[in-house]
Amino acid sequence: MRATLPLGTTVSLKHGAGGRAMRALIEQLFAEGARQPPGAVGLAEMDDGAAFPLRDGWLVLTTDSHIVAPRFFPGGDVGRLSISGTVNDLAMMGATEVLGLTCAVVIEDGFPIAELERIHASMRDTSREADAPVVTGDTKVMGRGELDGIVLNTTGVALTGRLVRDNGLRPGDRIVVTGTVGDHGFAVLAARQKLELQGNLRSDVAPLNGLIRQVLRAAGEGVVAMKDPTRGGLASALHEMAEKSGVGVLLEEQTVPLSDEVRAASEILGIDPLHVANEGKAVLGVRPEALDRVMAALDRHPLGRRAAVVGTCIAEQRGRIVLDTGLGKRLLSEPEGDPMPRIC
Amino acid sequence: MRATLPLGTTVSLKHGAGGRAMRALIEQLFAEGARQPPGAVGLAEMDDGAAFPLRDGWLVLTTDSHIVAPRFFPGGDVGRLSISGTVNDLAMMGATEVLGLTCAVVIEDGFPIAELERIHASMRDTSREADAPVVTGDTKVMGRGELDGIVLNTTGVALTGRLVRDNGLRPGDRIVVTGTVGDHGFAVLAARQKLELQGNLRSDVAPLNGLIRQVLRAAGEGVVAMKDPTRGGLASALHEMAEKSGVGVLLEEQTVPLSDEVRAASEILGIDPLHVANEGKAVLGVRPEALDRVMAALDRHPLGRRAAVVGTCIAEQRGRIVLDTGLGKRLLSEPEGDPMPRIC
Repeated sequence: MRATLPLGTTVSLKHGAGGRAMRALIEQLFAEGARQPPGAVGLAEMDDGAAFPLRDGWLVLTTDSHIVAPRFFPGGDVGRLSISGTVNDLAMMGATEVLGLTCAVVIEDGFPIAELERIHASMRDTSREADAPVVTGDTKVMGRGELDGIVLNTTGVALTGRLVRDNGLRPGDRIVVTGTVGDHGFAVLAARQKLELQGNLRSDVAPLNGLIRQVLRAAGEGVVAMKDPTRGGLASALHEMAEKSGVGVLLEEQTVPLSDEVRAASEILGIDPLHVANEGKAVLGVRPEALDRVMAALDRHPLGRRAAVVGTCIAEQRGRIVLDTGLGKRLLSEPEGDPMPRIC
Repeated sequence: MRATLPLGTTVSLKHGAGGRAMRALIEQLFAEGARQPPGAVGLAEMDDGAAFPLRDGWLVLTTDSHIVAPRFFPGGDVGRLSISGTVNDLAMMGATEVLGLTCAVVIEDGFPIAELERIHASMRDTSREADAPVVTGDTKVMGRGELDGIVLNTTGVALTGRLVRDNGLRPGDRIVVTGTVGDHGFAVLAARQKLELQGNLRSDVAPLNGLIRQVLRAAGEGVVAMKDPTRGGLASALHEMAEKSGVGVLLEEQTVPLSDEVRAASEILGIDPLHVANEGKAVLGVRPEALDRVMAALDRHPLGRRAAVVGTCIAEQRGRIVLDTGLGKRLLSEPEGDPMPRIC
């Protein structure tokens, strides 16, 4: 199903917000005329990355630029985000052993070296945590006023024997989220706007490859689809997985794990946490017979303690998410994009 | 030899200009504490990219962000540059068969869709010319005034049986440039400043993998070092190759090919073309016995017609470039950086 939104005449913030508008831009422009290497997963698939068949398995490739504002926020910073985002996209394809990452940095003239050192130290620490070495890079500088601070691009390459796509769901499969949702988006928003929100809102930004490795070892072929719910949140990720797989998803709202702080913030701000970005969570599609093994493996890892089964794939309502609120059912809208700009 | 320039307290344009200042930033900050995957060519080597040993050869990985201003200039545009730059870095490691490229774009809110389409069409055409498909991407949008237009990052991955490094020179090896130098930098500068320069200054931006493939087929192990002289020009590239190889280079100035337009522009502007960026040229280190085969292979390719032998490696003056002007000899300075900001 193509996103049929008209592009308009200029790029706007929604085109970078991870929802329907962004998909329209990519489908109608960037993916147009793209050639597909034989046997590969390429641009047209719009998965978390690309994959090339090698003799022993797959080479997986993925890229992400990071423009989060503010650059430091409770729970993380742009450096930790830049490593985690790319490691997680690789992991979502089943590639948990990272060969290497590239880091291309574009910096504004006048940027403090001390802040660059802090960002670099955070990248280095997260790179160690994920066992994902940065192996090559590029440095460019733009003039004062030509760039708001810094843009960090990381691209990752990994090898895997088995590829996990985002389109492998079939009716009866269960949907699992690996923890609470909305933490990253609300934490960044609160930091940006210096909101006095109650409690301890913290971003969940973390590399997930260790967690996913453990799950894949425990459940093998029982994990049939994965996606990290970043921009556009769980709602966007589920829409994409459902559409590509040709199934509907029945999502039980009351089972979606939320921290007390996110619940409070979402009520105050009137923003649905299902639409808000996460940077340390995964959505898994799991065959019913593998569910117990998956949940047990998640529970054994510090990043999976609050994992929950939140839904079931159905044959009806293909490409749609039916939200069971506990009081009734309605279709969950696919957002045009994440309600928050520059969230990652 | 480490670049011992002090970093200072803020980033400045010279830190992105491809010379000593940039090297100091990378060595003293980004490469600090970097882990090296076993057997790999990583960040510490500061070659054109990274390389990992695979069973049958090497996986080569390289990244580049592109911020050229103006975005369209005689002979090319940021789209053509973004594909060529990364394809050329792969080729400079000996990897001429590109598996795939990633494209991560950061765009300013309000950017015209029509211009994005032009840039994308140029990327697509250049990608076909290089047989280097774009296989995955990322799209981010920053607010108005937060970014001057667009940043394009491309990262490339390629396989090669034989790796060509930039440190393989030994005394007696000959230095070849594959054509005229300085064209890209002067063309962009003239376009940016709307200079009325005589003649037809055009950027040389082009993917070189076809040319390099032909050279490597003809000369095999006779090509022992390669580098593309981008920011900082031929002077920077030669300094880096000489330093890493532990040789000196005797450069015969009068043999360096220059177009009439570049010669005129350099005289008017007082900028040495040896310090100016190229985007469609390579510097090759060639064993003397392979020189004829290399020159013949270059001559058979449209991008190699004006190739020339410009120097010889010597055992003295290690890490330095001795410029023979025809009237006498002097040391060629290693620039702090390219004299022109936002050149690529």
